[in-house]
Amino acid sequence: MLPPTANLFADLPPLGRPDEEVRDLLAGRAVRIERIVSTGQASPPGFWYDQPWDEWVVLLAGAARLRVAGETEARLLGPGDHLLIPAHARHRVEWTDPETPSIWLAVHCRPEP
Amino acid sequence: MLPPTANLFADLPPLGRPDEEVRDLLAGRAVRIERIVSTGQASPPGFWYDQPWDEWVVLLAGAARLRVAGETEARLLGPGDHLLIPAHARHRVEWTDPETPSIWLAVHCRPEP
Repeated sequence: MLPPTANLFADLPPLGRPDEEVRDLLAGRAVRIERIVSTGQASPPGFWYDQPWDEWVVLLAGAARLRVAGETEARLLGPGDHLLIPAHARHRVEWTDPETPSIWLAVHCRPEP
Repeated sequence: MLPPTANLFADLPPLGRPDEEVRDLLAGRAVRIERIVSTGQASPPGFWYDQPWDEWVVLLAGAARLRVAGETEARLLGPGDHLLIPAHARHRVEWTDPETPSIWLAVHCRPEP
Protein backbone atom coordinates (compact mmCIF):
# COMPACT_ATOMS: atom_id res chain seq x y z
CA MET A 1 0.00 0.00 0.00
CA LEU A 2 1.28 3.42 -0.92
CA PRO A 3 0.71 6.38 1.41
CA PRO A 4 -2.03 8.77 0.36
CA THR A 5 -1.39 11.76 -1.86
CA ALA A 6 -0.61 14.97 0.02
CA ASN A 7 -0.55 18.55 -1.23
CA LEU A 8 2.39 20.90 -1.19
CA PHE A 9 0.26 24.04 -1.23
CA ALA A 10 -2.18 22.96 1.50
CA ASP A 11 -2.03 23.63 5.22
CA LEU A 12 0.22 26.69 5.04
CA PRO A 13 1.23 28.47 8.23
CA PRO A 14 -0.31 31.89 8.85
CA LEU A 15 1.47 35.09 7.86
CA GLY A 16 3.11 36.82 10.79
CA ARG A 17 4.41 33.77 12.60
CA PRO A 18 7.91 34.35 13.93
CA ASP A 19 9.68 31.41 12.29
CA GLU A 20 9.79 29.65 8.99
CA GLU A 21 7.93 26.37 8.94
CA VAL A 22 9.99 23.37 7.83
CA ARG A 23 8.44 19.97 7.10
CA ASP A 24 10.16 16.81 5.98
CA LEU A 25 8.40 15.30 2.99
CA LEU A 26 10.95 12.51 2.57
CA ALA A 27 13.73 11.59 5.01
CA GLY A 28 15.94 8.82 6.24
CA ARG A 29 17.88 8.13 3.07
CA ALA A 30 20.52 9.66 0.79
CA VAL A 31 18.03 12.39 -0.11
CA ARG A 32 15.92 14.54 2.18
CA ILE A 33 13.07 16.60 0.75
CA GLU A 34 11.71 19.52 2.74
CA ARG A 35 8.94 22.02 2.30
CA ILE A 36 9.92 25.36 3.80
CA VAL A 37 7.39 28.16 4.12
CA SER A 38 8.75 31.64 4.75
CA THR A 39 6.43 34.46 5.74
CA GLY A 40 8.77 37.42 5.75
CA GLN A 41 11.68 35.83 7.61
CA ALA A 42 15.30 36.34 6.60
CA SER A 43 18.57 34.91 7.86
CA PRO A 44 19.81 36.79 10.93
CA PRO A 45 22.35 39.56 10.22
CA GLY A 46 25.77 38.04 9.62
CA PHE A 47 24.45 34.47 9.52
CA TRP A 48 25.46 32.26 6.59
CA TYR A 49 24.29 28.74 5.87
CA ASP A 50 27.22 26.35 5.42
CA GLN A 51 25.75 22.90 4.78
CA PRO A 52 27.44 19.51 4.50
CA TRP A 53 24.99 18.26 1.80
CA ASP A 54 24.32 19.58 -1.69
CA GLU A 55 20.97 21.35 -1.84
CA TRP A 56 18.82 21.69 -4.94
CA VAL A 57 16.17 24.28 -4.18
CA VAL A 58 13.21 25.70 -6.04
CA LEU A 59 10.94 28.55 -5.00
CA LEU A 60 7.38 27.58 -5.95
CA ALA A 61 5.45 30.60 -4.68
CA GLY A 62 6.22 34.02 -3.27
CA ALA A 63 9.45 35.94 -3.65
CA ALA A 64 12.88 35.90 -2.01
CA ARG A 65 16.34 37.38 -2.27
CA LEU A 66 19.14 34.85 -1.91
CA ARG A 67 22.72 35.95 -1.39
CA VAL A 68 25.51 33.56 -2.38
CA ALA A 69 28.96 34.29 -0.92
CA GLY A 70 31.29 35.62 -3.60
CA GLU A 71 28.53 36.92 -5.86
CA THR A 72 28.27 40.67 -6.28
CA GLU A 73 24.47 40.81 -6.20
CA ALA A 74 21.72 38.92 -4.44
CA ARG A 75 19.56 36.68 -6.63
CA LEU A 76 15.91 37.72 -6.76
CA LEU A 77 13.85 34.54 -6.96
CA GLY A 78 10.26 34.12 -8.10
CA PRO A 79 8.00 31.11 -8.68
CA GLY A 80 9.81 28.30 -10.50
CA ASP A 81 13.33 29.64 -10.00
CA HIS A 82 15.72 26.88 -9.01
CA LEU A 83 19.42 26.41 -8.40
CA LEU A 84 21.90 23.95 -6.96
CA ILE A 85 23.76 25.09 -3.86
CA PRO A 86 26.77 22.78 -3.53
CA ALA A 87 27.83 21.63 -0.08
CA HIS A 88 29.67 24.38 1.79
CA ALA A 89 28.69 27.10 -0.67
CA ARG A 90 27.86 29.80 1.88
CA HIS A 91 24.54 31.51 1.35
CA ARG A 92 21.85 33.44 3.19
CA VAL A 93 18.29 34.51 2.65
CA GLU A 94 18.30 38.31 2.65
CA TRP A 95 14.56 38.81 2.30
CA THR A 96 11.29 37.00 1.78
CA ASP A 97 8.01 38.64 0.87
CA PRO A 98 6.07 39.39 4.07
CA GLU A 99 2.78 39.74 2.17
CA THR A 100 2.47 36.18 0.86
CA PRO A 101 3.86 32.77 1.81
CA SER A 102 7.09 31.88 0.02
CA ILE A 103 7.07 28.12 -0.56
CA TRP A 104 10.42 26.42 -1.09
CA LEU A 105 11.06 22.83 -2.02
CA ALA A 106 14.56 21.79 -0.93
CA VAL A 107 16.16 18.51 -2.01
CA HIS A 108 19.21 17.76 0.12
CA CYS A 109 21.62 15.20 -1.33
CA ARG A 110 24.10 13.32 0.81
CA PRO A 111 27.59 13.55 -0.68
CA GLU A 112 28.84 10.42 -2.44
CA PRO A 113 31.30 8.52 -0.26
CA MET B 1 30.97 29.91 -9.00
CA LEU B 2 27.43 28.57 -8.87
CA PRO B 3 25.48 27.99 -12.06
CA PRO B 4 22.85 30.60 -12.85
CA THR B 5 19.28 30.33 -11.64
CA ALA B 6 16.92 28.57 -14.06
CA ASN B 7 13.12 28.47 -14.10
CA LEU B 8 10.94 25.40 -13.88
CA PHE B 9 7.97 27.03 -15.60
CA ALA B 10 9.90 28.56 -18.49
CA ASP B 11 10.57 27.13 -21.93
CA LEU B 12 7.66 24.69 -21.99
CA PRO B 13 7.09 22.48 -25.02
CA PRO B 14 4.08 23.31 -27.21
CA LEU B 15 0.75 21.55 -26.76
CA GLY B 16 0.16 18.86 -29.35
CA ARG B 17 3.66 17.43 -29.49
CA PRO B 18 3.60 13.64 -29.63
CA ASP B 19 5.80 12.89 -26.63
CA GLU B 20 6.31 14.07 -23.12
CA GLU B 21 9.36 16.24 -22.64
CA VAL B 22 11.81 15.06 -19.99
CA ARG B 23 14.73 17.18 -18.77
CA ASP B 24 17.32 16.32 -16.19
CA LEU B 25 17.68 19.13 -13.68
CA LEU B 26 20.18 17.23 -11.53
CA ALA B 27 21.90 13.96 -12.43
CA GLY B 28 24.96 11.85 -11.86
CA ARG B 29 24.51 11.13 -8.17
CA ALA B 30 22.31 9.18 -5.74
CA VAL B 31 19.44 11.46 -6.68
CA ARG B 32 18.19 12.45 -10.12
CA ILE B 33 15.73 15.30 -10.51
CA GLU B 34 13.66 15.56 -13.67
CA ARG B 35 11.14 17.99 -15.04
CA ILE B 36 8.54 16.17 -17.10
CA VAL B 37 6.01 18.09 -19.15
CA SER B 38 2.96 16.16 -20.36
CA THR B 39 0.67 17.67 -22.95
CA GLY B 40 -2.10 15.10 -23.10
CA GLN B 41 0.05 11.97 -23.23
CA ALA B 42 -0.75 8.83 -21.23
CA SER B 43 1.04 5.53 -20.75
CA PRO B 44 0.35 3.14 -23.64
CA PRO B 45 -2.47 0.63 -22.99
CA GLY B 46 -1.24 -2.19 -20.79
CA PHE B 47 2.07 -0.46 -20.03
CA TRP B 48 3.14 -0.20 -16.38
CA TYR B 49 6.19 1.59 -15.03
CA ASP B 50 8.29 -0.72 -12.85
CA GLN B 51 11.28 1.31 -11.70
CA PRO B 52 14.39 0.26 -9.79
CA TRP B 53 14.63 3.57 -7.86
CA ASP B 54 12.18 5.15 -5.44
CA GLU B 55 10.44 8.14 -7.03
CA TRP B 56 9.03 11.11 -5.13
CA VAL B 57 6.86 13.01 -7.55
CA VAL B 58 4.85 16.22 -7.40
CA LEU B 59 2.51 17.66 -10.02
CA LEU B 60 3.07 21.43 -10.11
CA ALA B 61 0.66 22.45 -12.86
CA GLY B 62 -2.05 20.83 -14.94
CA ALA B 63 -3.97 17.66 -14.09
CA ALA B 64 -3.34 13.94 -14.35
CA ARG B 65 -4.79 10.60 -13.38
CA LEU B 66 -2.28 8.17 -11.92
CA ARG B 67 -3.10 4.50 -11.50
CA VAL B 68 -1.18 2.50 -8.89
CA ALA B 69 -1.34 -1.30 -9.21
CA GLY B 70 -3.50 -2.79 -6.48
CA GLU B 71 -5.52 0.37 -5.86
CA THR B 72 -9.19 0.30 -6.79
CA GLU B 73 -9.30 3.81 -8.22
CA ALA B 74 -6.93 6.04 -10.11
CA ARG B 75 -5.60 9.07 -8.22
CA LEU B 76 -6.65 12.39 -9.69
CA LEU B 77 -3.75 14.79 -9.22
CA GLY B 78 -3.79 18.58 -9.32
CA PRO B 79 -1.19 21.26 -8.62
CA GLY B 80 0.83 20.52 -5.49
CA ASP B 81 -0.23 16.88 -5.14
CA HIS B 82 2.74 14.67 -4.29
CA LEU B 83 3.41 11.06 -3.40
CA LEU B 84 6.24 8.58 -3.01
CA ILE B 85 6.26 5.69 -5.47
CA PRO B 86 8.56 3.06 -3.98
CA ALA B 87 10.84 1.09 -6.28
CA HIS B 88 8.92 -1.59 -8.17
CA ALA B 89 5.49 -0.23 -7.23
CA ARG B 90 3.85 -0.60 -10.62
CA HIS B 91 2.03 2.47 -11.86
CA ARG B 92 0.83 4.14 -15.03
CA VAL B 93 -0.38 7.53 -16.12
CA GLU B 94 -3.94 7.06 -17.34
CA TRP B 95 -4.56 10.61 -18.48
CA THR B 96 -3.06 14.06 -18.59
CA ASP B 97 -4.95 17.23 -19.45
CA PRO B 98 -4.56 17.94 -23.19
CA GLU B 99 -5.56 21.59 -22.76
CA THR B 100 -2.68 22.74 -20.58
CA PRO B 101 0.85 21.56 -19.81
CA SER B 102 1.09 19.22 -16.84
CA ILE B 103 4.41 19.90 -15.13
CA TRP B 104 5.86 17.15 -12.94
CA LEU B 105 8.90 17.30 -10.76
CA ALA B 106 10.29 13.80 -10.17
CA VAL B 107 13.01 13.06 -7.62
CA HIS B 108 14.47 9.60 -8.20
CA CYS B 109 16.41 8.13 -5.26
CA ARG B 110 18.90 5.35 -5.69
CA PRO B 111 18.21 2.53 -3.24
CA GLU B 112 20.53 2.31 -0.26
CA PRO B 113 23.08 -0.47 -0.70
